[in-house]
Amino acid sequence: MRTVGADQKRALASLLLRVDRKTSAPLHAQIDQALRARILAGAVKPGTRLPSSRTLAAELGVARTTVLLALDALQAEGYLVAAPRSGVRVAPELPEQGFAPAPVGTARAPSAPPRLSRAARALVGLGTGAPRLGAAPRPFRPGLPALDLFPIALWSRLVARAQSRASARLLEGGDPTGHPGLRQAISEHVVAARGARCTPEQVFVTAGTQQAFEEVLRLVVDPGDPVWLEDPGYLGARRAVLGAGARAVPVPVDDEGLDVEAGVRRAPRARLVILAPSHQYPLGVTLSLGRRMALLRWAEAERAMILEDDYDSEFRHRGRPLTALQGLDDAGRVLYVGTFSKTMFPGLRLGYVVVPPALVDVFGAARASLPAPASALEQAALATFMDEGHFARHLRRMRGVYRERAEALLDTLRSRCGGVLEPSPCDTGMQLCAMLPRGVSDLVVRDRAARAGIEVAPLSDYRLTRGGRGGLVFGFGAIRPAAIRTGVESLARALHSA
Amino acid sequence: MRTVGADQKRALASLLLRVDRKTSAPLHAQIDQALRARILAGAVKPGTRLPSSRTLAAELGVARTTVLLALDALQAEGYLVAAPRSGVRVAPELPEQGFAPAPVGTARAPSAPPRLSRAARALVGLGTGAPRLGAAPRPFRPGLPALDLFPIALWSRLVARAQSRASARLLEGGDPTGHPGLRQAISEHVVAARGARCTPEQVFVTAGTQQAFEEVLRLVVDPGDPVWLEDPGYLGARRAVLGAGARAVPVPVDDEGLDVEAGVRRAPRARLVILAPSHQYPLGVTLSLGRRMALLRWAEAERAMILEDDYDSEFRHRGRPLTALQGLDDAGRVLYVGTFSKTMFPGLRLGYVVVPPALVDVFGAARASLPAPASALEQAALATFMDEGHFARHLRRMRGVYRERAEALLDTLRSRCGGVLEPSPCDTGMQLCAMLPRGVSDLVVRDRAARAGIEVAPLSDYRLTRGGRGGLVFGFGAIRPAAIRTGVESLARALHSA
Repeated sequence: MRTVGADQKRALASLLLRVDRKTSAPLHAQIDQALRARILAGAVKPGTRLPSSRTLAAELGVARTTVLLALDALQAEGYLVAAPRSGVRVAPELPEQGFAPAPVGTARAPSAPPRLSRAARALVGLGTGAPRLGAAPRPFRPGLPALDLFPIALWSRLVARAQSRASARLLEGGDPTGHPGLRQAISEHVVAARGARCTPEQVFVTAGTQQAFEEVLRLVVDPGDPVWLEDPGYLGARRAVLGAGARAVPVPVDDEGLDVEAGVRRAPRARLVILAPSHQYPLGVTLSLGRRMALLRWAEAERAMILEDDYDSEFRHRGRPLTALQGLDDAGRVLYVGTFSKTMFPGLRLGYVVVPPALVDVFGAARASLPAPASALEQAALATFMDEGHFARHLRRMRGVYRERAEALLDTLRSRCGGVLEPSPCDTGMQLCAMLPRGVSDLVVRDRAARAGIEVAPLSDYRLTRGGRGGLVFGFGAIRPAAIRTGVESLARALHSA
Repeated sequence: MRTVGADQKRALASLLLRVDRKTSAPLHAQIDQALRARILAGAVKPGTRLPSSRTLAAELGVARTTVLLALDALQAEGYLVAAPRSGVRVAPELPEQGFAPAPVGTARAPSAPPRLSRAARALVGLGTGAPRLGAAPRPFRPGLPALDLFPIALWSRLVARAQSRASARLLEGGDPTGHPGLRQAISEHVVAARGARCTPEQVFVTAGTQQAFEEVLRLVVDPGDPVWLEDPGYLGARRAVLGAGARAVPVPVDDEGLDVEAGVRRAPRARLVILAPSHQYPLGVTLSLGRRMALLRWAEAERAMILEDDYDSEFRHRGRPLTALQGLDDAGRVLYVGTFSKTMFPGLRLGYVVVPPALVDVFGAARASLPAPASALEQAALATFMDEGHFARHLRRMRGVYRERAEALLDTLRSRCGGVLEPSPCDTGMQLCAMLPRGVSDLVVRDRAARAGIEVAPLSDYRLTRGGRGGLVFGFGAIRPAAIRTGVESLARALHSA
């Protein structure tokens, strides 16, 4: 065995510091990187002979193969040279000639941390949302549809069919505005089911709601501009506004939905309003017709835009269908955002924006020369799913399922938690909000429920401003009626035992 | 047949204006919307009796079913009421009581057009990129990999397998940072193939490169901040910078890559640099080691960040592998962006950012409570594709294919266009740039080539500033050697006949 000189030992000692068995980076890559960094920094001089791979392996406490992998890579890149009988040395000249970094001392001063944008600081300040009770959804985690009732076998066949037709076009990804057949199907759907005014040209496919929000903010709002947000409201909307560097203006929500007059008082020149007029999240109220017309008139007068987040209105359980706000808009002020996360399943990252005719060219130009907006395969499969009527059929079926679940939840909440919780009516979608008595903290109740294995979201999590009455948000889409009843029983025991 | 009063005829006349057979909106939806709008505007008064559906159909020149569909919808929503023997009337009270919009005149003043953000105006100003010769790619449209050599049958099996395992978890979409197995596989890939320093926690899956750019800009750059861009450079980077409201600072590129000293002179306090150090787009040069170290030192001193766009470096045809800039970064300044558009296929919208350890929490917090970043199905299938070694095998095979195509293109360009085109060396990827003689407009040459059925991109399309020598960018990834030779022959004839 070749002896290791003192100089080499020192070089090695500084290398060893970097080998870390706790990270998942392979050991050979760690050795490769550490040695390369030391050579570039001048800590290991050109021409230095390295110990044998066997010695290195022993010093580092790793297998010899690990060392050989690292040395081979460095040799291939020109940092090390091997000569017969004289072993491996650091290359006399570094791979790129004419570049000799100044040697650095043994201890490297730590770098200053990266600077963050104001948007990043605001987003980090939001925290990470409600804690979850493990990965499996418990009653009543909001946001999950009845995945066990999704026609997965049929969907799989359509995916396989789209895949087997995998033309060059499918692999290429297609149009930056979205799959033409899907845009057509979406346009027909929003006209028929939501009373929207829409041609396929107005439909821009996105990889989900969040991307749609970001795109709208980018194109119609400048940094620092005020944007009305419902308070309480959907957290993703707030994230998108903060991420765009715009100013979030909280506007209260009452029984008639967003308080338009309050919005006008707080930010009369807002550039954008984000709201869910058909089924406010999380309170579940509907924007009254008076407020709808007032909002549209204000937007037209101020040249403001309205982002209508119509996330689950397909699931109207009862009563006459509510037309989308977009369908009442004569002035081209409404950008209508829809998603397939609830109507299909959340793992399908597909959504869309319907833009007013005057903005079709702008949205098109902003996407020009970019790749397709979402998975080509899933866009094609969804176009077929809609074309063949499976989508409309699935919606019809789920309306009945969610009505049954909503009734089970409302009935049990009234009979078991009547003195404590005051649930709002629920005629749409898959979640509802129940108010707590004034003065009772929903965070405390949430924690108590969690200890009983029940996952509910505190209303205060959705508030942009402090104060206001506490409440609990229940998701019931993924929970069967029997489990709904058992869950409410557990919750009631937890509430009453306190 | 019921007679139609003069009053009703007037109401109808104003409705008829809106029925438009050229749009794809169904006629019944148009009638529904037009009538609803007129009722809300007070143009058709509460209590007005409508003509029979038969009369309406005749007046409008549509089928009676079409009219019935529209009337049924309005009746369901409470805008119309039907009584036995007295026909259909506008509801005496509108669906929402207490709201009576002021009647408007017959001619509605056109609304002011929507306001656009500065970012939108800048993006629209970019134009829509080079015209394309139809949908099918011709030689030599840049950016397309050899899709006919992609192992589509194998991939389809893995997609089907992931789909058949479609657990609740897959349908739910999973972690907002990405599929855990895919993050692990990406981390192993960038360490082994690109010499990056990376643990799975540092990997954030995205729906492609553009989303990765947008996310990085959102979190490390404030609106108005200067960002260095390579000039000429990748157009998508410029779109992302403009979309974020940041200031694009063009930095020239020479034989050693981005001119770091010029960048420091132009914007010494830039917050971000976006570049492709391993294979500059579209010139194809490599950032020299000296420039790499100078860039990293400057970034560390100025607390600037570097976005390394490593879009095709897996396809290094020959020579020793080049380590990613990220692998040399001791100070945590590099955000490494990779994509599967080239290594797999563009229709798969999957990419990733590897963030420095100090930014893992920030990127995580910014995504907290959001849905999964991309298709759950394709993430799962790709994780398996990588785990089982198919990805590495496909890369190895494609390296040989692209080497052969690069050689065919270079050989033919030299022998057939030697006097006119001066191709740069090509040891990586699937496109190359050939310079034109000084004074020759690449736009003119592009047009002449297009008339000969050849699609090349003019270098000036990629420039951020006017001037500079003209050149042509050739994509050869999707073109077989025989077609490459034929294509260059056609191009040569077009060039020489002028």
